[in-house]
Amino acid sequence: MAVFTQVSHTDVEAFLAAYGLPAPEAVTGIAEGIENTNYKIMAGGTRYILTLYEARVDPTDLPYFLALMEEVAGAGLPAAKALRMKDGTNLGTLNGRPAALIEFLSGRPNMAPTPQDARKAGRVMAQFHHAAAGLKTNRPNSMGLSSWKALAARAGTELNRFGEGLEAEISATIRTLEERWPSNLPRGQIHADLFPDNLLLDHGDVSGVIDFYFACTDDLAYDLAIGMNAYTPETSERNFDNATAMLDGYQEIRPLSDDEHKALPVLLTGSALRFFMTRAVDSIFPPDVDLYTPKDPLPWLGLMRHHRKELELIK
Amino acid sequence: MAVFTQVSHTDVEAFLAAYGLPAPEAVTGIAEGIENTNYKIMAGGTRYILTLYEARVDPTDLPYFLALMEEVAGAGLPAAKALRMKDGTNLGTLNGRPAALIEFLSGRPNMAPTPQDARKAGRVMAQFHHAAAGLKTNRPNSMGLSSWKALAARAGTELNRFGEGLEAEISATIRTLEERWPSNLPRGQIHADLFPDNLLLDHGDVSGVIDFYFACTDDLAYDLAIGMNAYTPETSERNFDNATAMLDGYQEIRPLSDDEHKALPVLLTGSALRFFMTRAVDSIFPPDVDLYTPKDPLPWLGLMRHHRKELELIK
Repeated sequence: MAVFTQVSHTDVEAFLAAYGLPAPEAVTGIAEGIENTNYKIMAGGTRYILTLYEARVDPTDLPYFLALMEEVAGAGLPAAKALRMKDGTNLGTLNGRPAALIEFLSGRPNMAPTPQDARKAGRVMAQFHHAAAGLKTNRPNSMGLSSWKALAARAGTELNRFGEGLEAEISATIRTLEERWPSNLPRGQIHADLFPDNLLLDHGDVSGVIDFYFACTDDLAYDLAIGMNAYTPETSERNFDNATAMLDGYQEIRPLSDDEHKALPVLLTGSALRFFMTRAVDSIFPPDVDLYTPKDPLPWLGLMRHHRKELELIK
Repeated sequence: MAVFTQVSHTDVEAFLAAYGLPAPEAVTGIAEGIENTNYKIMAGGTRYILTLYEARVDPTDLPYFLALMEEVAGAGLPAAKALRMKDGTNLGTLNGRPAALIEFLSGRPNMAPTPQDARKAGRVMAQFHHAAAGLKTNRPNSMGLSSWKALAARAGTELNRFGEGLEAEISATIRTLEERWPSNLPRGQIHADLFPDNLLLDHGDVSGVIDFYFACTDDLAYDLAIGMNAYTPETSERNFDNATAMLDGYQEIRPLSDDEHKALPVLLTGSALRFFMTRAVDSIFPPDVDLYTPKDPLPWLGLMRHHRKELELIK
């Protein structure tokens, strides 16, 4: 993981007191996750997740994320929400970092999802879009189309380490995407990071949607495009059964409009480019040389090229 | 993770040269795993895993682990084996640490296995036991019955932080296990750590068995008991459908003898105690206060108590 803040038992005890909770029976670090520090807490016989927000999360975004989690949990989605302290607030400070106490959800992710799992993920994403519609606060997508040119400029010729001529290929793809990006699709709050890792399953059922820290206000169909790519396995014989199944599951709850359908190849190309570019930049400029282990950008390059080919066909 | 050794592109290039491989196109750290440092390497268009063995692995055990991997891969099991260098050896040194270049296997784990997945895991474990029978080198189980008293002594009264009277309860359980531990079950090479994390799936099929670094020579049915516990979900309404399914899958390939069947409750209690104790000790004495995030011991305590109750019934 990128960063990890150590907390003492005494610090946690003081933090829990603000919630009217007793001293913790157990405090266990969680190794997963690269953006924030997470602890599993047992207090008064109940489990919680204690999250300390690290440097890669902008503290001014936290009220939006926590409000979104509360909104969708309140609408019945299996999503963890931040508890409120005795004074009514849900965001505190621990060891100098913003911190929240989050409901513990049972279940674990399936990192090797089958089409059946992808269909369930599609359904829950559509339910999330409906559930989040009540939230009127907005957050622009800081990782969206408008940010990709700057990312490409930052990477510069270093991009070519992932393939000859890649800098030019990425520039051309961004231009194509700018020309063809849809401008009037239904918008709302999107999760923007629904990878298999962020969906918990318990006995085969979805038991939790987690990690809302890339959520933002954008085209709903773009969220679906991210998910369809994220559920496409990174194997040599790539197949798109999971992507199709996720699309089907999504439409069981929220059928796409014609415009959304037509925009899918653009959105799929764009979301593949986004994950390739952020991973490539993290790999070129590792935030912390001692600890940061960047994720592999290459599978996303393959996905981007696949989708772009489709895009050329329907020009 | 506990430790992480940074390697430079130049170091990797020199390391690969000993295998007759070209300079790497890409080197990516892998965040998973707490015992060793792993990199994903792309060289000559092929993926590899580069593993640097850290302090928690005894270097004198490495030839056994690598021989076991080679043995079972050679027998057709989907297991990664260490490549051999031009000089015929398969264990090198990188940044002062023992290091090996391992075949890359496609697939990812399902951390939320269903009974169907558990049955597949049972089948593959039995296949592993058959495949490993050709290896005549032995390695005693350093985490077996004979080690638990010392672990309990090391934890001492600190064990009571996980529950009142737990020190006494663990001592009594170890005594019961010593009295009732079977002595004449079929033995062989066991994986000893077949958690869902260590089984890769690709499009629903088992594509890899990984992480052989707890493997040892012990009762085959004890390996099954570890797996049955490891596949039992850590949820509030614990159910044993996965354990039953794994047992069934195992017996499709290698039916248990009557003695093995009768010993299962003892072996299940013992393996639950083993994982509770090692996690409890890691939690009491974290090996590296800055980075180490111990796994939660408590679910294993619940499992141990469940199995022990069953054990008392059949006394």
